[in-house]
Amino acid sequence: MKPTQIEHIGIAVENLEESISFYEHILGLKCYAIEEVKDQQVRTAFFKIGEVKIELLESTDHEGPIGKFVAKKGPGLHHIAFAVENTNNALKEINAEGVRLIDKQSRKGAEGLDIGFIHPKSTGGVLIELCNKA
Amino acid sequence: MKPTQIEHIGIAVENLEESISFYEHILGLKCYAIEEVKDQQVRTAFFKIGEVKIELLESTDHEGPIGKFVAKKGPGLHHIAFAVENTNNALKEINAEGVRLIDKQSRKGAEGLDIGFIHPKSTGGVLIELCNKA
Repeated sequence: MKPTQIEHIGIAVENLEESISFYEHILGLKCYAIEEVKDQQVRTAFFKIGEVKIELLESTDHEGPIGKFVAKKGPGLHHIAFAVENTNNALKEINAEGVRLIDKQSRKGAEGLDIGFIHPKSTGGVLIELCNKA
Repeated sequence: MKPTQIEHIGIAVENLEESISFYEHILGLKCYAIEEVKDQQVRTAFFKIGEVKIELLESTDHEGPIGKFVAKKGPGLHHIAFAVENTNNALKEINAEGVRLIDKQSRKGAEGLDIGFIHPKSTGGVLIELCNKA
């Protein structure tokens, strides 16, 4: 596998509007999209800085992955996503290396990307997403 | 303030050599530098992917900032650094907005950068570094 860039950084937030305001007014970035991803139980807001996106994630359900994360660890950095040519091929390749995966096959994420997650147990505690570049 | 890009992503690790091996052999990145930053009580390893660096941080002292972070939260994503034109000016600007800072003045970090941190209490739980671009 040879990822080409960081596609985005995912950040769990408690209140999407308050966080958008911080990233816009203090950091000077511009929110270009807000999207609900129902099967992930999140509302997301996107910013672009250089070649990287920042994806803010607000839980819409306490039982969803972001709701559980915030309840356990508090809001903050949640995952990083590496852009790869083909998500399924990359997942297959690292699965063959004995790396533990959350997704053995890609699924659809925000912005229509094919995404798949590596398990933090195999990465030193970092939730790593692989995705094809938007 | 108008940051131009993500300069790096800081990741706290328990064992630098094991983590370097994961990023090199599984993710296909190349470690280009290992550096000890004594006043931060860390050993760091650097990778480049696209325009962004990944900085792995291994604590050299349980009482240092990374040692305390790992003891409390476990290894994982630690901070993101935004590149700005002038770190001191950016810190002054956001201090005037009432944002709580860890560093009111810049100090020297890894790779000789002028760096300064915003307090996570003001950012929704994210440790944000500002630095001039290397």
